[in-house]
Amino acid sequence: MELINALNWRYATKKMNGEKVADEKVQKIIEAAYLAPTSSGLQPFEIISISNEELRKKIQPVAYGQTQIVDGSHLLVFASWDKYTDERIDAMFDHMNTERGLPLNTTDEYKNGLKTQLFAMTEEQQAAHTGKQSYISFGTAIVAAALLQVDATPMEGFVHNELDDLLGLKEKGLKSQTILTLGYRATEGDWLQGMKKVRHPKEKFLTEIK
Amino acid sequence: MELINALNWRYATKKMNGEKVADEKVQKIIEAAYLAPTSSGLQPFEIISISNEELRKKIQPVAYGQTQIVDGSHLLVFASWDKYTDERIDAMFDHMNTERGLPLNTTDEYKNGLKTQLFAMTEEQQAAHTGKQSYISFGTAIVAAALLQVDATPMEGFVHNELDDLLGLKEKGLKSQTILTLGYRATEGDWLQGMKKVRHPKEKFLTEIK
Repeated sequence: MELINALNWRYATKKMNGEKVADEKVQKIIEAAYLAPTSSGLQPFEIISISNEELRKKIQPVAYGQTQIVDGSHLLVFASWDKYTDERIDAMFDHMNTERGLPLNTTDEYKNGLKTQLFAMTEEQQAAHTGKQSYISFGTAIVAAALLQVDATPMEGFVHNELDDLLGLKEKGLKSQTILTLGYRATEGDWLQGMKKVRHPKEKFLTEIK
Repeated sequence: MELINALNWRYATKKMNGEKVADEKVQKIIEAAYLAPTSSGLQPFEIISISNEELRKKIQPVAYGQTQIVDGSHLLVFASWDKYTDERIDAMFDHMNTERGLPLNTTDEYKNGLKTQLFAMTEEQQAAHTGKQSYISFGTAIVAAALLQVDATPMEGFVHNELDDLLGLKEKGLKSQTILTLGYRATEGDWLQGMKKVRHPKEKFLTEIK
């Protein structure tokens, strides 16, 4: 299966070669991330795609100097809603019903039940929940890049608050969750390149109940 | 791109037809989930693959009666570590170094820094963090199913505590995060089938900084 090969081919590239990823490929990766499913279809996150070099140079120290930030050509920042609000939930359901040609009140019962559930969570729990939804999309983007033979480095290792400040995310009610740098692997200088991909022994990872 | 087509083809199937997914396909979906990347490679979750009909019948009420639990042929339960421990982290780094033919102490400095970071989190934050890692894999499994034209319903809507009890997850230090039911869509009786897939307007979802 092409996907399994792609997943074996990819790795968290530590050194990129400066080559630019074609815009068409970046758009496909974003499209895949955009189509990923989320809980109740709320899609509680956004993507900021950064190719601007000056901005990437400013982000690099926030990400502990990781060179892929500047040696890749694009950064995708996955930023999730800081919390659920009536306004955000209503806007998505209204949009959904409008796109489907349904009366706006079609989903009221479901929506109100959902709100009761979501608003029963603390703000920290809500942020964890919106964050998790963004990780489904993040995973999808990682797969999309691998299928396009574009190298990508998934990153959680950056100062989230500082990136939020730099990108003005707080004002938008967003919190950065992850970064995906896109580019092409360098042939030298990457300690992880050529290392065996290691996962838990399968029998420890998987339990089958037949 | 085949992936984009597959993502447009898939939907959160609400009614399945009882047809069994071939074991070979299920194994490919699990393999993709297994290969998904995680933060520092800790892979802090497991998958329980359930085809046993009796057990799926017991799980159905825990998932608010959702019929895909029994009308699909397999459930993949994604269950993440309840918290990080020295033992778990050491075991993964030892395994990684052994598989790579490196001395066990190769990664000590990195590992100790990582522990400092992870143990600074509350247990709730740790559980959110391990949970997020499982969502990358969850997203990867959803994509894999779609590429194989296997229908899948991603589910968060179940009583997590009750499923944990039913599967004995607490004793293993695991918390259920999500379920993915695998099967084939029924041709009738699914309200979502044929409905337009709706996402936020692209200009609201994506910001490009060039």
